[in-house]
Amino acid sequence: MSNNDSTEMAADLAANAALLEMADVLGISPILDGGVFFSVAEVAAAADIPEASALSFLRALQAAGLVAGDENGQYFTPCADLADRRYDAGYLSWSLNANRPYIDHAAELLRHPEATVGKYQRHGRRVAISSRWIGSYGFYPDVISEITRRKPARIVDLGAGAGGLLIHLLKVLPASSGLALDLSAGACEEAEFAARHANVHERLAVVNRSIESLVDDPGPVRGADVVHAGFVMHDATRDMDVLDAILRACREAISGNGALVITDAIPYVDNQRERAFSALFTYLHEGGMGILLPSEESWRAAFLRAGFSTVTTTPLRMPGSRVFVAVR
Amino acid sequence: MSNNDSTEMAADLAANAALLEMADVLGISPILDGGVFFSVAEVAAAADIPEASALSFLRALQAAGLVAGDENGQYFTPCADLADRRYDAGYLSWSLNANRPYIDHAAELLRHPEATVGKYQRHGRRVAISSRWIGSYGFYPDVISEITRRKPARIVDLGAGAGGLLIHLLKVLPASSGLALDLSAGACEEAEFAARHANVHERLAVVNRSIESLVDDPGPVRGADVVHAGFVMHDATRDMDVLDAILRACREAISGNGALVITDAIPYVDNQRERAFSALFTYLHEGGMGILLPSEESWRAAFLRAGFSTVTTTPLRMPGSRVFVAVR
Repeated sequence: MSNNDSTEMAADLAANAALLEMADVLGISPILDGGVFFSVAEVAAAADIPEASALSFLRALQAAGLVAGDENGQYFTPCADLADRRYDAGYLSWSLNANRPYIDHAAELLRHPEATVGKYQRHGRRVAISSRWIGSYGFYPDVISEITRRKPARIVDLGAGAGGLLIHLLKVLPASSGLALDLSAGACEEAEFAARHANVHERLAVVNRSIESLVDDPGPVRGADVVHAGFVMHDATRDMDVLDAILRACREAISGNGALVITDAIPYVDNQRERAFSALFTYLHEGGMGILLPSEESWRAAFLRAGFSTVTTTPLRMPGSRVFVAVR
Repeated sequence: MSNNDSTEMAADLAANAALLEMADVLGISPILDGGVFFSVAEVAAAADIPEASALSFLRALQAAGLVAGDENGQYFTPCADLADRRYDAGYLSWSLNANRPYIDHAAELLRHPEATVGKYQRHGRRVAISSRWIGSYGFYPDVISEITRRKPARIVDLGAGAGGLLIHLLKVLPASSGLALDLSAGACEEAEFAARHANVHERLAVVNRSIESLVDDPGPVRGADVVHAGFVMHDATRDMDVLDAILRACREAISGNGALVITDAIPYVDNQRERAFSALFTYLHEGGMGILLPSEESWRAAFLRAGFSTVTTTPLRMPGSRVFVAVR
């Protein structure tokens, strides 16, 4: 994989990921993602560190090629391919940092599966950040184009987290309104804050509830033209009856030409491009979280059982991921 | 870096590294490295887990292409390029796992450098394992050939850790004897155990001491034809006077045509192949451990000050690493 004299791809990717993680811990990811030049003073202020410290870190980023500096060493510019590097870093951070508990406790989880599945929790922020980095090219672009081309007047995101996807959609679709639903009260607060910051808060409702609660009260999805769920619906697949009930509740509540757009991973995809990451993703869900990812066929069957008329499946760039579109 | 439709290199490398880390936690790295077929029962026994659990993990490795299984799913074979994959995984594990404290505390380390440098310790085993994986192709092959071609009758390894390099050398050079010196009592115990296991214990002495102690008592390096130090001598460079005294003590004590073979990293190497990992390596030593790596010129000057007659420098495969050979 790396027997190439001119590059050390693994070393490059590892160094980029570690440096981008440190930049994120320092709170300067937004500055790097801004794409324009910035000063040492701005970095020092954002990270709440002395300017001399900011300069020593920026010199490391510069030496790695992540930023370029001016002659005086006071202004820096992010490298042209920073977005690509962040996308790559996402896979490393997700695999080796976000899922760390499942790696470190691999023996215990396999020794006493019943007693330990679900015992170790991942660090929510580590999962969220690395997933967002993967998503930047791995699934968001195709999901966003799938949703926007349907020109939905009302969009609901199930498991919306901090609301990033929905806020992006509401900015692109200025006449639309949306609802963000999430089980985490902290994520809901973040979503409300972000919505105000993006000035879409008058068109965005935030609801702190579980997806399962839609079975008894489908209010949140009522009249939606698109209901999206990204990598959260598989949590409901521990009991396929629950999944069926959720899908049925959604179908009955959405608008006449509404659609469910489900982004999720299918298990153990067997082609050269997808197999390694798909294997890790599947195994961690099974062994660490006790989640058996449904196959493409299981998803299709579940949509049809719930009464949806047509279901399409499209591969996304993230290995193992698919977007299912089920039309009412 | 990854805009290639046919591969997702970062995803592949990340998945391989996470799965190989889990295999190592399970204690089955030696089985995978054996290069021959093995049974589910062997893996279950080595990892002390039920056979059903061993099978579920092996299926993940198989899905990722790290092992191949037979028709009955009872016997498996490591993939042909496992050594390459382990080498690649080394960079990811070292950067994102072994150095985790410096990433997670990046802000604090930059906010109060004087108070925090050296405060956070890395996990010794994580550093040792990931360094060994990098070293498999990154520095050991060239260092071993440099040492063996000198046909040394006596070899001393400073900072020998668990003795892996020295034991390998003593097996290749059956008439030679060696001495392993390390500051860690635990590492010394491991080295003694490994030497007995490899049946070279009669030719290998293990000494639990600091490298700095050679200044007052150079006994351990007396008469050595080769004194090697891999990525440990930079610890002594906080005070160049101490480094000078160690180098001088070594030069005076070694045999007439003896040589010092120092494997170490130089700071911020500025070429495309080395720059990213060299930047991370340099920054972590500086910001996390308070170690300023000497430049190639500083090393050369130090050897010459200590009285060595000739010094050669050769780049190794690990980005930023060099082997210095200083002849008495």
